[in-house]
Amino acid sequence: MTLLHIDASADTPADSVSRQLTGRFVTAWRARHGDRVHHRDLAVDPVPPLTAAYTTLGRRVEREGLVPPEKVPALIANPAEEREWAHTRPLIDELRAARTLLLGVPMYNFSVPAALKAWIDRITFPGAFTDPDSGESLLAGTRVVAVLARGGAYGPGTPRESYDFQTPYLRAYFGNLGVTDLHVVAAELTRVDVIPQLAGLEELAARSLAQAKDAVTALA
Amino acid sequence: MTLLHIDASADTPADSVSRQLTGRFVTAWRARHGDRVHHRDLAVDPVPPLTAAYTTLGRRVEREGLVPPEKVPALIANPAEEREWAHTRPLIDELRAARTLLLGVPMYNFSVPAALKAWIDRITFPGAFTDPDSGESLLAGTRVVAVLARGGAYGPGTPRESYDFQTPYLRAYFGNLGVTDLHVVAAELTRVDVIPQLAGLEELAARSLAQAKDAVTALA
Repeated sequence: MTLLHIDASADTPADSVSRQLTGRFVTAWRARHGDRVHHRDLAVDPVPPLTAAYTTLGRRVEREGLVPPEKVPALIANPAEEREWAHTRPLIDELRAARTLLLGVPMYNFSVPAALKAWIDRITFPGAFTDPDSGESLLAGTRVVAVLARGGAYGPGTPRESYDFQTPYLRAYFGNLGVTDLHVVAAELTRVDVIPQLAGLEELAARSLAQAKDAVTALA
Repeated sequence: MTLLHIDASADTPADSVSRQLTGRFVTAWRARHGDRVHHRDLAVDPVPPLTAAYTTLGRRVEREGLVPPEKVPALIANPAEEREWAHTRPLIDELRAARTLLLGVPMYNFSVPAALKAWIDRITFPGAFTDPDSGESLLAGTRVVAVLARGGAYGPGTPRESYDFQTPYLRAYFGNLGVTDLHVVAAELTRVDVIPQLAGLEELAARSLAQAKDAVTALA
């Protein structure tokens, strides 16, 4: 059993609700399942932006049909593509090796942070998560726990629900990858101390955070 | 009249439908309105990832109420925040100065590319686009033309419509910024030559591209 723990907040743990919640999950997980935890911090160690060499290699691989990662090197045409693949393959391997993926995801501008999108854009390489023989997803047995923090309230029934491009996006993206075991925990109103329009919602914010804490502990 | 032309595709113009379409827009625009075009290429010159200094400065500024960009420097506390602001201010100034914003946006994994999200996450700084006296948006008079390219079909009525986190996201984001004059042009099925499942849709793809070309020329 291995856990891949990914944080995407630009904030340090002291200021980041998503980091505090993933930290709580990891503590509970270690107590229950042991030490096989790999932490990838997308703010401290950003995923490099895609270049034309990445997309060119991706198209060449895709035209070949279902090519597993170990057969990609034979299709690499130049040093630029080699560099791109060297940035990409370890991220793919990490996710393939994980039994559980834990994601800490603050909402930035109604969606996931650019730091997380850079990881998504890079790992989603043709054939990376598909069994080349059966065509089935290799992530069908992977558990994904997405721990969200949002400055305001975007949950079902709130006035800003239609501005949530974080929860439905992650569901669509991972669903399309073949993930069937996806859990979403969201702490809402985390910026109640910063945004004047949220004044008076302190209790709701505290309740949402307490529920999120309980939920991540239960899921670990 | 100035045009801010932003491209977000990782592909070179030879392989990028969104770049070909924004190029067509710019050619028509120059012929009609002159040479005041500023091009920002988010692939060639990526927007640096956010750090904790950015978010810390942002919270400090937000707590002060409506602070316009020219008053941010007085609130900067250390060299790290100064560097963040130096990365941010020029992007904000460019958008504020533009009469028209032209965005070239390929769909990456059902949403906007990480390269564009990095620009969005950085420019959306407290007070950046708000008149500090009236509280009104400074982008109410800005025309935004978003030129999209998507490998498959995600338009209204298609089976994959609910996977479109590109069009509704850009509408929500710019709408929230106070933009009222937003135009979306989408070329669909642009990867018909790469993805086997799209075989047989070549004519639809060609028609969609032809319509997009006409639309950008008309909008310029």
